Amino acid sequence: MTEKILRTKIQETVEKARAANPLAPSITNTVTQDFVANAQLAVGGSAAMFYLPDEGETMSQIAPALYLNLGTLMPFYAETIPRTLRALKKFSTPFVLDPVGIGFGELRTELFLQMKNFPPTIIRGNASEIIALAKLWGLNDSETGKVRGVDSTDTVNAAKNSAAILAKFTGGAVAVSGVEDLITDGEIFIYSTGGSAFLSKITGSGCALGGVTAIYAAVAEPLTAALTGTVIFNCAAACAEKLTDAPASFKVKFLDELYKIDAAEVAENPLRIEAAK
Amino acid sequence: MTEKILRTKIQETVEKARAANPLAPSITNTVTQDFVANAQLAVGGSAAMFYLPDEGETMSQIAPALYLNLGTLMPFYAETIPRTLRALKKFSTPFVLDPVGIGFGELRTELFLQMKNFPPTIIRGNASEIIALAKLWGLNDSETGKVRGVDSTDTVNAAKNSAAILAKFTGGAVAVSGVEDLITDGEIFIYSTGGSAFLSKITGSGCALGGVTAIYAAVAEPLTAALTGTVIFNCAAACAEKLTDAPASFKVKFLDELYKIDAAEVAENPLRIEAAK
Amino acid sequence: MTEKILRTKIQETVEKARAANPLAPSITNTVTQDFVANAQLAVGGSAAMFYLPDEGETMSQIAPALYLNLGTLMPFYAETIPRTLRALKKFSTPFVLDPVGIGFGELRTELFLQMKNFPPTIIRGNASEIIALAKLWGLNDSETGKVRGVDSTDTVNAAKNSAAILAKFTGGAVAVSGVEDLITDGEIFIYSTGGSAFLSKITGSGCALGGVTAIYAAVAEPLTAALTGTVIFNCAAACAEKLTDAPASFKVKFLDELYKIDAAEVAENPLRIEAAK
Repeated sequence: MTEKILRTKIQETVEKARAANPLAPSITNTVTQDFVANAQLAVGGSAAMFYLPDEGETMSQIAPALYLNLGTLMPFYAETIPRTLRALKKFSTPFVLDPVGIGFGELRTELFLQMKNFPPTIIRGNASEIIALAKLWGLNDSETGKVRGVDSTDTVNAAKNSAAILAKFTGGAVAVSGVEDLITDGEIFIYSTGGSAFLSKITGSGCALGGVTAIYAAVAEPLTAALTGTVIFNCAAACAEKLTDAPASFKVKFLDELYKIDAAEVAENPLRIEAAK
Repeated sequence: MTEKILRTKIQETVEKARAANPLAPSITNTVTQDFVANAQLAVGGSAAMFYLPDEGETMSQIAPALYLNLGTLMPFYAETIPRTLRALKKFSTPFVLDPVGIGFGELRTELFLQMKNFPPTIIRGNASEIIALAKLWGLNDSETGKVRGVDSTDTVNAAKNSAAILAKFTGGAVAVSGVEDLITDGEIFIYSTGGSAFLSKITGSGCALGGVTAIYAAVAEPLTAALTGTVIFNCAAACAEKLTDAPASFKVKFLDELYKIDAAEVAENPLRIEAAK
Repeated sequence: MTEKILRTKIQETVEKARAANPLAPSITNTVTQDFVANAQLAVGGSAAMFYLPDEGETMSQIAPALYLNLGTLMPFYAETIPRTLRALKKFSTPFVLDPVGIGFGELRTELFLQMKNFPPTIIRGNASEIIALAKLWGLNDSETGKVRGVDSTDTVNAAKNSAAILAKFTGGAVAVSGVEDLITDGEIFIYSTGGSAFLSKITGSGCALGGVTAIYAAVAEPLTAALTGTVIFNCAAACAEKLTDAPASFKVKFLDELYKIDAAEVAENPLRIEAAK
């Protein structure tokens, strides 16, 4: 896939979401629901959050894509998540997984283990989470020691192998967030830069990226959807940072930019492409 | 009721809420609690959210009005909502219902069905929700086919009959949100314009309107409370829109305007009045 | 302890939190989680919210400090809170308690009663809450009648005795929020002024203060942590108020100031000190 084609797909995906107003319902943590929903609306999508099993089944049937983020589990997730996963598979509905909190708590570990049988269309996490998920699913035992590092370019590189293995296993795409972000389908490795240090000074920017990626997954295939989400975040954050000097006003400007930014400008954001060896 | 009397009542209600700081506790969805509470505080009220049955009973006894929004149900709502409804009836406490999500999920349907025996003082929803509630309660089977339309002036008109039937059934008021909003007690039909397209680009503006309407229901009779909530939203949103070009900064300005706007200016917002034939 | 030493400690604590990025996980109400987390990040800390018992046990073991706020109880808190309290004691992990909602609901009363056996390192509440907690724990029956007053300088004074008794009982510190805030370890009484009336026109400023105090409790002893939290809030709010004329834009500026404000400027905020007689 040439860079030119990728850039055209990014622009088309941004425009399609704005035109189609796709609904991407979420099971997501209670901390950042407002940010996730407002980010989804800002890029042209529609949001709905829910907790109950039968709602998960209905949403999996009627919505074009879902977003799952197990950041703040409550006891009834033990029933909601499995039933939603079964329905997602039954109706072949694409979904984005944020493996936040992986390794923390028995229920979360159990639910992430179950997901191996219901592979997410797109996995969006930081390097440690991606490595931990590949390890939990028994796909890559060699990188065990690096799980607890902080996010950095090095760490994204450290997660490159796990990301590729996960993408090949799921048949979808994986996005690894860091200073330089990595998006891969296991065959091609795309690196995206930009963004802002303020994204890590506000809560939920990773969650919001997952939710926006689900909006794009409703109108594009996995690699393009994952790439478009990451790139519009990098582009809008870089613009917002120029307008502010502190995190709360950055967040307002960032959401504004997600809404206002020109699709062609998003598509021109820096990209670096490597093919798998 | 003449237009002049209505305008006087709107101004008085805005001023009363600012002077009295009434508490309107909420059972409301987790996505937009922050927005609901901040909107309630901005108009001079006080906010409290809760989940447990005995808290619903106590709140129904001590608070001057409640707000119920079943947007994100959790399993224990199966006990909290019925016990709260019984207490609201026992203590004759006014409450505002937002029938969001109607038709979605078994528990929500069951709870909305139970509410027929505990009629809300004010129902605030979009046209589809108002039509669906009238149908669910067996009050208006003729408008079934129009439930899934998007909000528009036409759709508000389509919900006019259902709104009137619901208002007569409850003995309270119904507010239908749309491009032109409708407020009715079944006898008089008041249309309010203004607002901003940005209200639909941020999550929870309908929820926030429900919460603010509950604040006004603590200090005014149902028709006036519903009207004042809708009109201050239209007025503040129109002011905020002039100061911004994107949704996140609009939300900040909108909340600021709810706080700052002159009560007399709210009362001068465009109104159109029709009597029932 | 001289005023000069206190001011040095405040400055050092602000700087330490910015340098160390301590994690202070929370069990806190769903309404204000976004505000709590963003305030914690703004002062240099890290945030994580959770609901499940085994997560509470793990967090109590690995985190340097926790924040407990029982504002919106759900049924499973009946297990999460006791198990978390036992783990906090076992691992001698400091934690900040916000006794919000005290006296409201059976479960909350039961949980607050249990906490007497697991004394919080810092208690941060308004005057009524502090008086009510001292009474609930059978430590101060003489001030019963004043529980329902609104916050005011008088009320903070009315809570002075209860605050001192609680601090002596827990061996930690107590912060009472009001027009003039009081921080005490039972031996010294420090009064801090500043702040802004807008703090009471936005939801969750008390919760956010509790969360920020927990960040400071991860890097300082209780009295200094409680004092630093209160003083940076007073200082940042006073700065933010000068830049705005309404609550929503105040909130944005306030969070920005928490992030930007110079540690030396925080340490220069007005203080008044009294020793116990």
